[in-house]
Amino acid sequence: MEFSSKLLERAVNEMSQLPGIGKRTALRLVLHMLKQPKEQTTVLAEALQNMRNDIKFCKSCHNISDVHLCEICSNPNRDETLVCVVEDIRDVMAIENTSSFKGLYHVLGGKISPMDGIGPHDLNIISLVNKVKEGKIKELIFALSSTMEGDTTNFYIFKQIQDYKVFTSTIARGISVGDELEYADEITLGRSIVNRVPFESSLKL
Amino acid sequence: MEFSSKLLERAVNEMSQLPGIGKRTALRLVLHMLKQPKEQTTVLAEALQNMRNDIKFCKSCHNISDVHLCEICSNPNRDETLVCVVEDIRDVMAIENTSSFKGLYHVLGGKISPMDGIGPHDLNIISLVNKVKEGKIKELIFALSSTMEGDTTNFYIFKQIQDYKVFTSTIARGISVGDELEYADEITLGRSIVNRVPFESSLKL
Ligand SMILES: [Zn+2]
Ligand SMILES: [Zn+2]
Repeated sequence: MEFSSKLLERAVNEMSQLPGIGKRTALRLVLHMLKQPKEQTTVLAEALQNMRNDIKFCKSCHNISDVHLCEICSNPNRDETLVCVVEDIRDVMAIENTSSFKGLYHVLGGKISPMDGIGPHDLNIISLVNKVKEGKIKELIFALSSTMEGDTTNFYIFKQIQDYKVFTSTIARGISVGDELEYADEITLGRSIVNRVPFESSLKL
Repeated sequence: MEFSSKLLERAVNEMSQLPGIGKRTALRLVLHMLKQPKEQTTVLAEALQNMRNDIKFCKSCHNISDVHLCEICSNPNRDETLVCVVEDIRDVMAIENTSSFKGLYHVLGGKISPMDGIGPHDLNIISLVNKVKEGKIKELIFALSSTMEGDTTNFYIFKQIQDYKVFTSTIARGISVGDELEYADEITLGRSIVNRVPFESSLKL
């Protein structure tokens, strides 16, 4: 791509460093900015820099926060004996959105993935194991994605804590509410039959 | 979307002002930035602001430029009697990329589109008509997209300059090189038959 301006070229090149943003998309976005008032670009640039420079991670659950202990961890109405282990903060947002969970979270920051060079020590696992050792947690819910990396991570953590008194569970896998059985993948369908629940308990949903 | 941080929320909201970037995509991009060094976000923010604040538009062709007269307009080897009229700077980049055009450009900045509230005076049309009146241009090539808005814009400009001595042309429409006839749309196929060229001249391509 040949640019008629170095300023334009640099802006496009920097935008296209972002994942999923190619040069063409970056150019489209940058040309859009040129049609908007200058202030709008200033506001965007400042919002990104303030976020990057000032954001904090909760010292307990590692969720993104503006303070040292996040709103969830510091909420006295949440059940601190129940901890849901998730990959990243998007999972926290998704589960919070369901309003069905009143415990705390523990954000790992990823999954163990030797292929991507991510080992246990690149994740927030030690702090989780320490929490379990302290004895305050009654149940740990694994809510990682059900991939090989997710299963590996679950198992790694499970081995670290199995000598301590804590109940571990994983979120239920099954056919999505409203989905047709015939379109479900075999593994999900199989698990949903094996892990069937008493009909009466399904009526509570 | 409920955010655990105001800084995060603001960054996501500003990113999602960009066209084609929804909240989910914005969140993904912003979380990516948090995993990269702080400097990378600073560099991006500064590149966008410098571009927005300091970029210039060529006073002659309205192409984006870092100087008052762009590289193309100030190149003595380009034919200033031949001017290609385009919608925006992406068209200049696309045509320059083919290395098949040695004239100058005139960037309108859009198409006449009453539905979007864009009239002739919102575009760089007066400066084009003035160039024609000065008598230096021998041929004007319309290279707008072949939509109703493109045709309207071509015709509007044509009416403004028809009393002056200038030859007008439009870029050829036809079947793309390498394309199968059966997959071409009817209008393009029809035009490509009506505007057929002598076989010998096609051999030059
Ligand atoms: Zn927290
Ligand atoms: Zn120019």
